[in-house]
Amino acid sequence: MGAVQQKLPSADRIRIAARELFATNGFHQTSMAELAAAADMSVGLIYRSFKSKADIIEAIVRADFDEKLLEIGALRQQLADGELTVLETFRQLFLQVMDEGDEALSFDILAEGFRNERVGQTIGEMCERFRGYLREFARAANARLDGEDLEGATELLLGCLFGLGHRSISRPNLDSAHIAEQSARMIVAAFRDM
Amino acid sequence: MGAVQQKLPSADRIRIAARELFATNGFHQTSMAELAAAADMSVGLIYRSFKSKADIIEAIVRADFDEKLLEIGALRQQLADGELTVLETFRQLFLQVMDEGDEALSFDILAEGFRNERVGQTIGEMCERFRGYLREFARAANARLDGEDLEGATELLLGCLFGLGHRSISRPNLDSAHIAEQSARMIVAAFRDM
Repeated sequence: MGAVQQKLPSADRIRIAARELFATNGFHQTSMAELAAAADMSVGLIYRSFKSKADIIEAIVRADFDEKLLEIGALRQQLADGELTVLETFRQLFLQVMDEGDEALSFDILAEGFRNERVGQTIGEMCERFRGYLREFARAANARLDGEDLEGATELLLGCLFGLGHRSISRPNLDSAHIAEQSARMIVAAFRDM
Repeated sequence: MGAVQQKLPSADRIRIAARELFATNGFHQTSMAELAAAADMSVGLIYRSFKSKADIIEAIVRADFDEKLLEIGALRQQLADGELTVLETFRQLFLQVMDEGDEALSFDILAEGFRNERVGQTIGEMCERFRGYLREFARAANARLDGEDLEGATELLLGCLFGLGHRSISRPNLDSAHIAEQSARMIVAAFRDM
């Protein structure tokens, strides 16, 4: 562990060490003792910050989504300031979600979301915040979108971003730059056609 | 276990029992002893059919994809026979993937695909077979689609289907009938616009 991480509050140090261990070995295959060794602290100290492994997963979900929401918020600002066209905004949105890595961890977390109500609820809340941005992007493409059409557009976009964000498991034939370019073009056309 | 399942070959009985146990308790949280009890056979007999839990996961992936490919093949036939319009074909395609249940198991399997090369390869091969059908549907919407445009359309459609197929974790605001209707409309419009 680097000197910078040593200075972080315990909860952040645990979260960062856990993220790396869970990603490599799997959530269920990582013990609290292994986590304590990686975070350079006692198991007892971990339990003072987190009651369970599920609580750590929840902290990881919140931190990861917060980071994504910052990125998407920056895109929204650039669109609002006229620095990006609608098409370019969508292209960058697709690029942001693709090939982020840590997909095994992402799937572990999602599976846990079905088996642990609190983790599931946190993921749902974070998706709802995400939808807020996507609705704005959909309306930037077509200001007339409203009601169920706007919700449908938002759900399709959320589905595309989720699917393309986890596409590496499907061993795709096209690189992410091409996919982002073409998907932006198609989705913007689809929204404008509604 | 029902009388019908008792008559199945051992490998199928194990796969069916494993699918249920993995879905409920998780892949890594299920032991071979629990599986043996559920399949009503000895652990030794399980090892005669499968060398490891990963081999059972692989069998589940193949069986699940085979079922999906049968469904999508039936859609293709109805489209070819003129029984379904292009739009209706896409609507049914979206409906087929949504709300299938067993999403926790699906995420467990996908995570395993990153940690076990053979499972990952099987998922990749199955996705490639899936793409074959999706290319045909994309060309039914727009016969001029070709080369990179056709690949881009196929990847976007695969991403949408994957994302919408796993949407319940996001706690969506619209039901699947509405999403299928609107997504079909938007994606067909997007493909026709290319």
